[in-house]
Amino acid sequence: MSGAPGYRVRAFNFETRGPGDVSGLTGLLERGEVRAEDVVCVLGKTEGNGGRNDFTRDLAMGALERLIGSRLGVPPESVQDRVVFSFSGGTEGVVTPHMIVFVREGALAKDAAARRAEKRLSVAVGATREFEPGEIGRMPQIEETARAVRALVEELGVDDARDVHLIQMKGAIPPFTHAEAEAAARAGTPLRCDMAYSRGASALGVALALGEVQPEALSDEVVLSDYRHYSAIASCSAKPGLRRTELLAFANSAYAEGELQIGHGVLTDLLDVAGIHAVARGLGLKLGAPPDPAEVNRIVGVFAKSEADARGTVRGRRHTMLSDDDISDTRYSRCVLSSVLAATLGDTRVYVSTRAEHHGPQGGGPLAMIVRAR
Amino acid sequence: MSGAPGYRVRAFNFETRGPGDVSGLTGLLERGEVRAEDVVCVLGKTEGNGGRNDFTRDLAMGALERLIGSRLGVPPESVQDRVVFSFSGGTEGVVTPHMIVFVREGALAKDAAARRAEKRLSVAVGATREFEPGEIGRMPQIEETARAVRALVEELGVDDARDVHLIQMKGAIPPFTHAEAEAAARAGTPLRCDMAYSRGASALGVALALGEVQPEALSDEVVLSDYRHYSAIASCSAKPGLRRTELLAFANSAYAEGELQIGHGVLTDLLDVAGIHAVARGLGLKLGAPPDPAEVNRIVGVFAKSEADARGTVRGRRHTMLSDDDISDTRYSRCVLSSVLAATLGDTRVYVSTRAEHHGPQGGGPLAMIVRAR
Amino acid sequence: MSGAPGYRVRAFNFETRGPGDVSGLTGLLERGEVRAEDVVCVLGKTEGNGGRNDFTRDLAMGALERLIGSRLGVPPESVQDRVVFSFSGGTEGVVTPHMIVFVREGALAKDAAARRAEKRLSVAVGATREFEPGEIGRMPQIEETARAVRALVEELGVDDARDVHLIQMKGAIPPFTHAEAEAAARAGTPLRCDMAYSRGASALGVALALGEVQPEALSDEVVLSDYRHYSAIASCSAKPGLRRTELLAFANSAYAEGELQIGHGVLTDLLDVAGIHAVARGLGLKLGAPPDPAEVNRIVGVFAKSEADARGTVRGRRHTMLSDDDISDTRYSRCVLSSVLAATLGDTRVYVSTRAEHHGPQGGGPLAMIVRAR
Amino acid sequence: MSGAPGYRVRAFNFETRGPGDVSGLTGLLERGEVRAEDVVCVLGKTEGNGGRNDFTRDLAMGALERLIGSRLGVPPESVQDRVVFSFSGGTEGVVTPHMIVFVREGALAKDAAARRAEKRLSVAVGATREFEPGEIGRMPQIEETARAVRALVEELGVDDARDVHLIQMKGAIPPFTHAEAEAAARAGTPLRCDMAYSRGASALGVALALGEVQPEALSDEVVLSDYRHYSAIASCSAKPGLRRTELLAFANSAYAEGELQIGHGVLTDLLDVAGIHAVARGLGLKLGAPPDPAEVNRIVGVFAKSEADARGTVRGRRHTMLSDDDISDTRYSRCVLSSVLAATLGDTRVYVSTRAEHHGPQGGGPLAMIVRAR
Repeated sequence: MSGAPGYRVRAFNFETRGPGDVSGLTGLLERGEVRAEDVVCVLGKTEGNGGRNDFTRDLAMGALERLIGSRLGVPPESVQDRVVFSFSGGTEGVVTPHMIVFVREGALAKDAAARRAEKRLSVAVGATREFEPGEIGRMPQIEETARAVRALVEELGVDDARDVHLIQMKGAIPPFTHAEAEAAARAGTPLRCDMAYSRGASALGVALALGEVQPEALSDEVVLSDYRHYSAIASCSAKPGLRRTELLAFANSAYAEGELQIGHGVLTDLLDVAGIHAVARGLGLKLGAPPDPAEVNRIVGVFAKSEADARGTVRGRRHTMLSDDDISDTRYSRCVLSSVLAATLGDTRVYVSTRAEHHGPQGGGPLAMIVRAR
Repeated sequence: MSGAPGYRVRAFNFETRGPGDVSGLTGLLERGEVRAEDVVCVLGKTEGNGGRNDFTRDLAMGALERLIGSRLGVPPESVQDRVVFSFSGGTEGVVTPHMIVFVREGALAKDAAARRAEKRLSVAVGATREFEPGEIGRMPQIEETARAVRALVEELGVDDARDVHLIQMKGAIPPFTHAEAEAAARAGTPLRCDMAYSRGASALGVALALGEVQPEALSDEVVLSDYRHYSAIASCSAKPGLRRTELLAFANSAYAEGELQIGHGVLTDLLDVAGIHAVARGLGLKLGAPPDPAEVNRIVGVFAKSEADARGTVRGRRHTMLSDDDISDTRYSRCVLSSVLAATLGDTRVYVSTRAEHHGPQGGGPLAMIVRAR
Repeated sequence: MSGAPGYRVRAFNFETRGPGDVSGLTGLLERGEVRAEDVVCVLGKTEGNGGRNDFTRDLAMGALERLIGSRLGVPPESVQDRVVFSFSGGTEGVVTPHMIVFVREGALAKDAAARRAEKRLSVAVGATREFEPGEIGRMPQIEETARAVRALVEELGVDDARDVHLIQMKGAIPPFTHAEAEAAARAGTPLRCDMAYSRGASALGVALALGEVQPEALSDEVVLSDYRHYSAIASCSAKPGLRRTELLAFANSAYAEGELQIGHGVLTDLLDVAGIHAVARGLGLKLGAPPDPAEVNRIVGVFAKSEADARGTVRGRRHTMLSDDDISDTRYSRCVLSSVLAATLGDTRVYVSTRAEHHGPQGGGPLAMIVRAR
Repeated sequence: MSGAPGYRVRAFNFETRGPGDVSGLTGLLERGEVRAEDVVCVLGKTEGNGGRNDFTRDLAMGALERLIGSRLGVPPESVQDRVVFSFSGGTEGVVTPHMIVFVREGALAKDAAARRAEKRLSVAVGATREFEPGEIGRMPQIEETARAVRALVEELGVDDARDVHLIQMKGAIPPFTHAEAEAAARAGTPLRCDMAYSRGASALGVALALGEVQPEALSDEVVLSDYRHYSAIASCSAKPGLRRTELLAFANSAYAEGELQIGHGVLTDLLDVAGIHAVARGLGLKLGAPPDPAEVNRIVGVFAKSEADARGTVRGRRHTMLSDDDISDTRYSRCVLSSVLAATLGDTRVYVSTRAEHHGPQGGGPLAMIVRAR
């Protein structure tokens, strides 16, 4: 390795006192520990309901835009052109509102001299082209998402697709007119331009790019229908009005320095403690009951998707999450999985977002973890 | 052991299809597997909100009253004079609505000939005397509850208090007039005749009876104030209008036959997996990830109390259960602890009720489990 | 009029102390004021959420079944073969939980001798034939519903359709298999066998029968699409699993005695005070601010349908009922319309149920009132 | 009147597209119709839950601070030293989220030459001294609030107290330690330093200042106990951590120009349409059903307080707002009163906040309206 500073990703996990609390990052910047130019993305959980009237994400993102904008000397509204924010509302139960700031320093060079024995966390950011409404939820969205993922993989400095562990996405839902919708229905291909289809096709695009699903298994019919096909690496939230899908890719690279590593696995249901153990084991994290504080301190980020099993049962027994008209199943499924993760890992700063079409098997979902290497 | 049928307690755990579903017990009675005369108590979780407008408990109890009443040839409204019902609303998250029917057969005789090498589950039912409103939440309630517990312990056939593992109670809240309340306030001893005080004093009464707390540590001032004093065996819900506290006691007795055993422990917080393991270990239950189905099948009942830690933190990190005005902290805390129990034990039929004043340490609570002995 | 007792309908509106409170009807029956044989239907509002996990309706109907069954000497489960129950959950805001018992005495004979100068309330009960899943939400359901309405109109003793003021329905949603659904989709006529379509087609069936809509205006395409077509008389709730639509028809008849009259109108939106006034005026009810107690006492029943306007506005200004993920728009729209009705009429015992597809114009709905004639 | 510009208050009512939407005021400022220096207060309703986890108010106030701060060239965090913001969360039902910007221009001079035949809206802003925790909810808070109100009345240019129609307050709740609370309890005067007491004593202070209650009727015992004593002019929300009560006073003054007038009255309960009519009539506003658009357009602001009657009834009949554990009574009572106001006035931009201790009679509350004079 040369004397020049290498490529590395650092991450800082801040507990927040409220949705607009950016004091953690403010401190880092003021103390000169991090340069605003190097902030690549911020993921966080805020204490809203995670639904349409959840304004806590706006508070968090507005505060970050003003902070980072003022440090960079650019208008707040241009900050999201440089830095990707992925905030998820809903800290049900024991979840601690928090944000994780990722900082990328140096440039990744895939030359033999820079190759290290140990792989370390690498991050890349990108987007698909703009979609037409008729493409959403069908093969064109799947294929373009796969293309965009493959392009990102090139930047990550990985040996192969198995080094990629998390593709976080904001899925496109381009605007359309009533007339376009009617024309599409008359043509026999009704629009699928909604959140569920965009999430599902985005996940299948990741699965296609990373070899989790074979091309011949995919078709328009499979989307939101044949849940045997899924990704264990994708994590997508869809956003009405968005024309392109934004992507954030995390991998381990032999050309990266730093102290972070990422791993992932799939949870078969909301209670899959064995699945959590498997991911931890893959990262050399020793879980115990009670958890060892030294090991808990190695955890930097925990990212999962939850879903109340649509069949109405968990482990063969009835659950009532889908027949409750007072509290949404999204809040219940996040609460359940967050509780199980927090109890098993010993950390209440877990990022669980909900709705997991083609993200893991039905009733289950993907889990990714970033830890400090030993 | 003589040829006469011995004393034994059997328990049947039925998943319900709805709050008024008593088909499980109906089948038992119709097939002659159980006699209505032997049903001693039914505990269950129903899919309501657990609050004032939760009518699911009424549906369950009404259906049981009609079923048992018709088998006994007595009016439905007299059934609760013989059989104790303890239903708790709120099956948040993965919890399966269920009811556990306890059947007591034969008479317990504490004679040496009947003594067995292995202790088995024993049940007793009783009540305190009627309380005055001014006694609730103060030493008279604590001491009378302790007296009633000691009387029950005599009936359980135990060797000592350490064999008692669960005292389930409906705490008294006798009615009072506005004038009585004002007179008490003027006299310098304002009434404490509410749910929190009745639960707290009931738990301290159990603690006193079973030696968990020393008499000299108790006073009126301790109630709802000094949470270092608590029971790990009590489980109380208070009921406005009730003049006497009803008690249900579960223990292991060397004079009982059957295949059931009970154990208990204390959970230090909502995420205390180690505490769950300890109770399981005490009962010889082997927990794994994933759980071993043969071991899961040994579980007959899981009873716990939950509480959102009033200090606003769990394991040193902020939680938002107490500042959410859309969803009650009672629903969150039940969801969290139920999820952790279900994931750790592999069974979604868990009975978690909430509010745990002097039931275990602040933020924690008692856990009792009944299993089939090996 | 002959000396023989004539045909009359009486109605009793009881405030309830809880969902299972049938003390009002119990008293009527015990005092001999009403014969159980004459009870034709009971409509009521219970204090649940009106959704899938609202068990308050079950409590009310179970209590009525047991009460009426014991008086008739028939099993409780057979009571609904004779008496129609229509309970709606959700007493948001100021609404008083209540039930209205309708009693029909004597036989209606449409002979000239029995004709009276003043028309009085008449009630008839009926049902459609059983539906196939593929018929729901399409012309077959509309036409069969219209046929059943016309048959009922014959029984009501009316001069013409303008005397009919309320058709209360439980709309059919026959069960179907996944295979049937797929076959229908492949055949180009995907099933519409859901609550919204069943409610919409039921309302259009009423509109067709009563001349509110012309036959040539109707087609499969109109249902849930062209909201210019609607009934101001229909009120339908759909019930999964029901194969036939049950109907309850209320009219004014010159061959009926008694003291009750019914009227109806359409409310253009949730705030349509003028529409309420018009219905009251048609019944000779004098509304004032404050309401005159003597006039308020004339009110026996108030029945309306509410809907949060799908366009997101009321009177041209934004409302937030449809973007709130904490509280359902069904609860808001019921609360709004109930409040306006209660304030305008001076009575908090109003029966507002929600979801009003083709029931009045979009954002509005039908209003029927039963009053004691002067 | 001299040639110099007179004193006037203008008000602009903007419908908002979301909690952070300040485009209405932005336009006013950019077009030069209003100077930022003249903005005296902004009142608004935002689409949150109105509770502890309602962050919509923060979004609105943050956006206003940044807008006004940038126009004035001062830091955003100093804007609230000059401009009073009073935002209330909760736009239940048909309420349109909106904000009303009040602009005060010129200086009020109480000289005879400036006296006009018609009185017009006048506004003044002030605060109490800082309170000790032990003063809250007792006579010292009442008397200091009364003093502050009297001082404001001097500034309003009124002829007498009858010209004052609304005192909007943020009530003080100074911080205190556990030790202070315990010392106060031991001294026989337990702290009342909470929201209910601060609201109640603030309202009684207004009542004392404006002659609604006689001094001899007031004592520490009256607060939150004898609800016969109340103000029909006060409107207070209490804010934990606030050491001084902030006050906003609205009156009609013969020394004010402009086109606005204010009036007020008291509503006896949530359904008091006659009370709304009385306030409208006092302002010469003609209400009809349907409302006359020209008259509706005269309405500039509608301010009321709501409360679910603690006795559990409205107009002698049971309501269920206080026994619902799924939805708070605060949301119900706001929804009910807002619906009745919107239906009666024809305007969905109504500002109803909840909890009304000593604000009008039990179950009722004050109503103030600002209209454009004819």
